[in-house]
Amino acid sequence: QDITENKFGKGLINVVAKDSSFSAYFGIRFQSLMTSKWDVPENGGIQDGETNFLIRRARLKFEGFAYSPKLTYKFELGLSNRDISGASQFTSNAPRFVLDAVLKWNFYENFELWAGQTKLPGNRERVISSANLETVDRSLLNSRYNIDRDIGLQLHHFITINDTFIIREIVSIAQGEGRNITTGNIGGYQYTGRAEILPFGDFSDYSGADLERESNPKLAVGVSYDYNDNAVKTRSNMGSYMITDTGFFETDIQTLFLDALFKYEGVSIMAEYANREADNPFAVNEDSTPTGDVVNIGEAFNIQAGYLFENNYQVLGRFTSVDPDDDFSELVENQYTLGLSKYLVGHKLKVQTDISYTDLNQDQFDGLMYRLQFEFHL
Amino acid sequence: QDITENKFGKGLINVVAKDSSFSAYFGIRFQSLMTSKWDVPENGGIQDGETNFLIRRARLKFEGFAYSPKLTYKFELGLSNRDISGASQFTSNAPRFVLDAVLKWNFYENFELWAGQTKLPGNRERVISSANLETVDRSLLNSRYNIDRDIGLQLHHFITINDTFIIREIVSIAQGEGRNITTGNIGGYQYTGRAEILPFGDFSDYSGADLERESNPKLAVGVSYDYNDNAVKTRSNMGSYMITDTGFFETDIQTLFLDALFKYEGVSIMAEYANREADNPFAVNEDSTPTGDVVNIGEAFNIQAGYLFENNYQVLGRFTSVDPDDDFSELVENQYTLGLSKYLVGHKLKVQTDISYTDLNQDQFDGLMYRLQFEFHL
Amino acid sequence: QDITENKFGKGLINVVAKDSSFSAYFGIRFQSLMTSKWDVPENGGIQDGETNFLIRRARLKFEGFAYSPKLTYKFELGLSNRDISGASQFTSNAPRFVLDAVLKWNFYENFELWAGQTKLPGNRERVISSANLETVDRSLLNSRYNIDRDIGLQLHHFITINDTFIIREIVSIAQGEGRNITTGNIGGYQYTGRAEILPFGDFSDYSGADLERESNPKLAVGVSYDYNDNAVKTRSNMGSYMITDTGFFETDIQTLFLDALFKYEGVSIMAEYANREADNPFAVNEDSTPTGDVVNIGEAFNIQAGYLFENNYQVLGRFTSVDPDDDFSELVENQYTLGLSKYLVGHKLKVQTDISYTDLNQDQFDGLMYRLQFEFHL
Repeated sequence: QDITENKFGKGLINVVAKDSSFSAYFGIRFQSLMTSKWDVPENGGIQDGETNFLIRRARLKFEGFAYSPKLTYKFELGLSNRDISGASQFTSNAPRFVLDAVLKWNFYENFELWAGQTKLPGNRERVISSANLETVDRSLLNSRYNIDRDIGLQLHHFITINDTFIIREIVSIAQGEGRNITTGNIGGYQYTGRAEILPFGDFSDYSGADLERESNPKLAVGVSYDYNDNAVKTRSNMGSYMITDTGFFETDIQTLFLDALFKYEGVSIMAEYANREADNPFAVNEDSTPTGDVVNIGEAFNIQAGYLFENNYQVLGRFTSVDPDDDFSELVENQYTLGLSKYLVGHKLKVQTDISYTDLNQDQFDGLMYRLQFEFHL
Repeated sequence: QDITENKFGKGLINVVAKDSSFSAYFGIRFQSLMTSKWDVPENGGIQDGETNFLIRRARLKFEGFAYSPKLTYKFELGLSNRDISGASQFTSNAPRFVLDAVLKWNFYENFELWAGQTKLPGNRERVISSANLETVDRSLLNSRYNIDRDIGLQLHHFITINDTFIIREIVSIAQGEGRNITTGNIGGYQYTGRAEILPFGDFSDYSGADLERESNPKLAVGVSYDYNDNAVKTRSNMGSYMITDTGFFETDIQTLFLDALFKYEGVSIMAEYANREADNPFAVNEDSTPTGDVVNIGEAFNIQAGYLFENNYQVLGRFTSVDPDDDFSELVENQYTLGLSKYLVGHKLKVQTDISYTDLNQDQFDGLMYRLQFEFHL
Repeated sequence: QDITENKFGKGLINVVAKDSSFSAYFGIRFQSLMTSKWDVPENGGIQDGETNFLIRRARLKFEGFAYSPKLTYKFELGLSNRDISGASQFTSNAPRFVLDAVLKWNFYENFELWAGQTKLPGNRERVISSANLETVDRSLLNSRYNIDRDIGLQLHHFITINDTFIIREIVSIAQGEGRNITTGNIGGYQYTGRAEILPFGDFSDYSGADLERESNPKLAVGVSYDYNDNAVKTRSNMGSYMITDTGFFETDIQTLFLDALFKYEGVSIMAEYANREADNPFAVNEDSTPTGDVVNIGEAFNIQAGYLFENNYQVLGRFTSVDPDDDFSELVENQYTLGLSKYLVGHKLKVQTDISYTDLNQDQFDGLMYRLQFEFHL
């Protein structure tokens, strides 16, 4: 057995070449999730409970630099059945293994060019790794409106003013059909822009919970605008293809995200707003008869606040409201979540649990959900 | 090229952190199998021979401890087409990659809590890794009645009396639908209990062949009882879902295993008995018409004995009898196997070959099978 | 973070055991490809342009020796959706992950026995790793006639005469249905023979581009003959199974390859000829009605020449002609390609781009294609 200088949580392998020609991090992670759910009828009572176990995520991750510290790579593979689901004729009927396969080139000063498949610069909650959430999982806002991963180019840039005031800008052009597509581009491309301001200096703004217990207040505010030109899927670059009797229905879809993250002395507050619009949300065949597919236009709001105690227990409250456009659905979801996390080794080894109450309108049964999750991230 | 202190068979990587915060083993293995089969009609002769080649298993394995030596992990991935087969709507139509994803926590003295997906404490032959078999592959008893892997919790405990007499107890609660299920629990849970006695001290009781050439006789005796409450699959947590016109047929399924392993001076003897019963083996629709699915109730017996020569060649004989309940099938299989193995580097590099004669009743043709397999396990 | 003596391009891990009991290389690679295509009608003009992005290949690779330097292994996994596509009932409806899983045993002097799944000794362009091509991708000759990978045995041998004149011979017997087949052999086996002559000494004859800038002319000439006895697939061991109303249509398929590679002072020239014949190219049912499947008999020729400048830019021209037998198709494809590559770190980090004009007969529209690809190979 060899001895390594590395510590737990820094990867199974974590090396840098003596000649500085490359570095490599190789990590593994998995999450075990237990979920219990009950229906809550409007006239009271709790019924139809069921409890499920799931390997929620299982991943292999590779990161580092190659050739020069200015050229970095990220290669991440999903392995759990939930990670790789979504096979279709558009993915060669093959599971979707590759999450990220991207090169990042710092070609000039504060500019960095990204090429390959990775997350688009959308809402903050999505871009935060699922390994670094302060909640058991992302909010309903994210599951309805996020723009996930795609393949293409991104240009990243940042400016620092007065030592602490940071402005970041990202522009992206992508294929617009989501990740692991082998049938190429249909319709037009997807264009995304994002701007961020960090007025009080850099911090872990893409990681949940104030594990650093910031001694000065830290804030990050972001706005993303995404324009999917002639999109052919129901949730911009996600959801299902809008197939017509002669091909694909195409419509321009716009998604807007506003988000903010604040951290200070163990307190972490994150808020997000999402809005989606489409030129023609109702997919139609060539003869104008509806195909049944509808773009999920509408809006959502999420706010969550947590406090990390000295013993690395964190309590958290979350409120999420999803309000689709009435053209898409009149169902409004309001979800109230209370969470408790124990960070044994930061985000690398943690136990997270939460209880959520989902209030539905339209005389639908409300829902109660309890979850317990272990995260292991070597 | 770096120099490692490790030896072949101890992993591609095998490290421990200087600060004892983690250890990591990363190994790969694959098996190449050649199989020749012939039909043997009752009136004599041999016919319809065919020979097939197969990458039987291909795996990535990760093991070690993290945070503390009291918290160990196992993460194993299957990669061959045989390993990952079994995709269905219940696995998100995705291949079944993850074999094990489990954390084991030695929280108090001799107690260990396991959480995640791994093998249930069923029959010994199943729990022995396929890498450590003394045969080309497991017996027909195992393929008919084993309870394989599932997701849930296991509590392990052991007692040592008089320095050598060891008692082990395991209780397990699992989802009961098998591994890599994304549709959650249907019906009830699966409860498993196992007890083991090692009267003459600890030894490699979950590894085939007496590679250690025990100088004193060693014995392990085990009994497992598995109760799958409201099971919905034809082989307890394996086989196919028993789908009815209104949902799923549910019945309680009980599986019992008795097993023993003996090793002494190159001799290894293993015997197993399995029995499966179900409250209502015949699946029916709501109107009591049969769906066609039947639980594979019945019993089986397996015994095998091998001797390891000084030159690491091992000869082995095996007899397996599978006798289903007549309600399930009147077909009785008796299989006689003669095996020869050469252990080049223990179980890490070996060549195994066997010839089997399968005697079937009911005027069915008997079968003759020859197999040759290489195991490579870095 | 640990320090490694390795350099970029030699693997994420590259170790040899102190006791010489094993060595291990573990590498990762991925390719990001952009493709733009246009139709070119016979009456002129360019139309119907479309641009696609694709993670073309993504791989994990393991290589080294085990037990003894005379026993080497190769284990390679494909991960991109293009790599793993091709699931069918013949692969257990599972994606085709495993590319190579092979042991190579140098059992006597210049003899080496290979066992497992790997590339057959077919045309040179196919056997050159996709990581080491001097073009964006292989030629049309290869996509129509190559015999790819299969499972079985290969015997390799070489002779050296007068220090520099090298003769290599390979004979192979394989299952003949391609890689990752779980349904075993149908029809007969596939027999392949290959002979190679290197009159001016050894060189990188399975790698594109003269990165070594050979100071003396180097030449490799090869011939492969492949006989797939009672083949059941339309492209020998590739393509689709020829299913009839009673089983499978079987016919003997013969494929011949001639190839040559020349390298000298930055110049690299490669030429290949392929020819396929079948006893009965038209698949028929038992009553002699055609099933619609036809074996892709015919021939093809490819020649390419490149020059590597001192700054590691390479220009390359390629001409490929595919001329199927008229029984299969009367469509003749002539493709003209102009390529430009920049080798940042040899084949390990490179940018490749090419433009191709495909001239089709039979009044079909010609095609224009532009491609840009990044290769990253840690």
